[in-house]
Amino acid sequence: MKELISLVDEKLNEYMPVIYPEDIFKAMKYTLMLPGKRLRPIMCLETARMLGCDIKKAMPTACAIEMLHCQSLIHDDLPCMDNDDFRRGKPSNHKVFGEANAVLAGDALLTFAPQLIIEKSKDLNSETILKLVHEFTKWGGAYALIAGQVVDIESEGGKYVKSPEETLDFIHMNKTAALFRLAIRSGAIVSNAEANVLEELDNFASKFGLVFQIYDDIMDEISSFEELGKTVGKDKNSGKLTYVSLYGLQEAKSKFHSLIQECYDIINKYNSKIFTEILDKLRDRILGV
Amino acid sequence: MKELISLVDEKLNEYMPVIYPEDIFKAMKYTLMLPGKRLRPIMCLETARMLGCDIKKAMPTACAIEMLHCQSLIHDDLPCMDNDDFRRGKPSNHKVFGEANAVLAGDALLTFAPQLIIEKSKDLNSETILKLVHEFTKWGGAYALIAGQVVDIESEGGKYVKSPEETLDFIHMNKTAALFRLAIRSGAIVSNAEANVLEELDNFASKFGLVFQIYDDIMDEISSFEELGKTVGKDKNSGKLTYVSLYGLQEAKSKFHSLIQECYDIINKYNSKIFTEILDKLRDRILGV
Repeated sequence: MKELISLVDEKLNEYMPVIYPEDIFKAMKYTLMLPGKRLRPIMCLETARMLGCDIKKAMPTACAIEMLHCQSLIHDDLPCMDNDDFRRGKPSNHKVFGEANAVLAGDALLTFAPQLIIEKSKDLNSETILKLVHEFTKWGGAYALIAGQVVDIESEGGKYVKSPEETLDFIHMNKTAALFRLAIRSGAIVSNAEANVLEELDNFASKFGLVFQIYDDIMDEISSFEELGKTVGKDKNSGKLTYVSLYGLQEAKSKFHSLIQECYDIINKYNSKIFTEILDKLRDRILGV
Repeated sequence: MKELISLVDEKLNEYMPVIYPEDIFKAMKYTLMLPGKRLRPIMCLETARMLGCDIKKAMPTACAIEMLHCQSLIHDDLPCMDNDDFRRGKPSNHKVFGEANAVLAGDALLTFAPQLIIEKSKDLNSETILKLVHEFTKWGGAYALIAGQVVDIESEGGKYVKSPEETLDFIHMNKTAALFRLAIRSGAIVSNAEANVLEELDNFASKFGLVFQIYDDIMDEISSFEELGKTVGKDKNSGKLTYVSLYGLQEAKSKFHSLIQECYDIINKYNSKIFTEILDKLRDRILGV
């Protein structure tokens, strides 16, 4: 894991130049280079590796997905959205560069990322690159990531079109699971995976997305600022719809355990220390709660 | 011109669904469907037509470029940027849908647009589609459109890295000319134009971008709200760097006339009523000033 994190950090740094006008590139790079778990790029790379593909082929796409993730964090933190002053333990982007630059840095990451896939995926043919960019646009936009964010914001105002349970699942299948699906699907596409393999791993990614979100909701309930590096207890205080607020801590934990078991059941068919390590970490942390 | 505007309007409406969660699609569609001149998509389509290509092939890309343009308008109008309450004579996006939705609607257009190129360009091969998406990402991001916007914002604070003249040209070669270049280059790519034709038309697009911006600066100086459909005299009042504020009205007009002549010189080699009509309109309006 640590080696992969360092590798992704190194590549992110290499891919992102700081040229004139420096302010925008610095703002893009600031949030991008904050120390993170790099879960999404690692899952993309690991999917490629376990399907027998050289991870170099997946690297531009893996980094592009981290850029997309960072873009969503920068915009989510804006005063008009979640109004969060901290991210990964540091001042959030608009606190450092101002709101205008934070909006533009997000926008810029959103076009820089697919440009990176196109320009740096040298060992892939046009057909495959186009598929990767297509996946990027599908999961990064109004049909997934942004749909989740919009419904999340609406639900805070108590505005549900669907039931609370359906609304919560919709939010996180889109806001959270979408980028894991994008990461894993992209790793499979780079590896020319068979359709049934792609489908099975996509199913894993969906379940993992929900596991990860339930984990996050439980942690928000019980952790300190120091542990999370961001404002905690906000969800509870704002009366926000979460797995803990809707189902209670016990049922949220039980949902977590049953979903994570399904994740193990799928991924155990593949030979992946990395995925097992990621699942183990989440499970062990929740067992201690 | 009118027929082409109607055709683009019809296609934009067709391409943009309104599905759950409706708020985001409505916000995207609101600014997109405000009556506009549709200059960029029309220039894309006309480039394809005059190079002997069926404009249907260029339609998804033409509409995607209008979406990119609308995205930049939505974000430019935000309170943290130009803080403009009106756009095309109507309340701007954030005045209708709120700031959070306006930020997200812009983000969503930025991924929806290349998705549209990929999904709807049915008569083009992967290679060509990939080139079109590549151009979109290059001109729509930190290397062009956003670079121009960032330097524009900085220059308002009187912060120049380069000279005022170079800064002003940089802003508009990027903020304004970039999307005309994208439009015309895309039309040429769809038509499989030879490299020298692409280069000549790209040169036309650069010059046209500056012509258009000088026109805009002069109009901002002399027009009324009713004529422009947006707040006027803002540039003058904010002490903003414009062709009029930097060179004075007379020299701005003289620059305009010499650049527009260069545009005629290039485009007269091609048989295009549309481009001639566009140039004539701008020239006649400035002659009347």
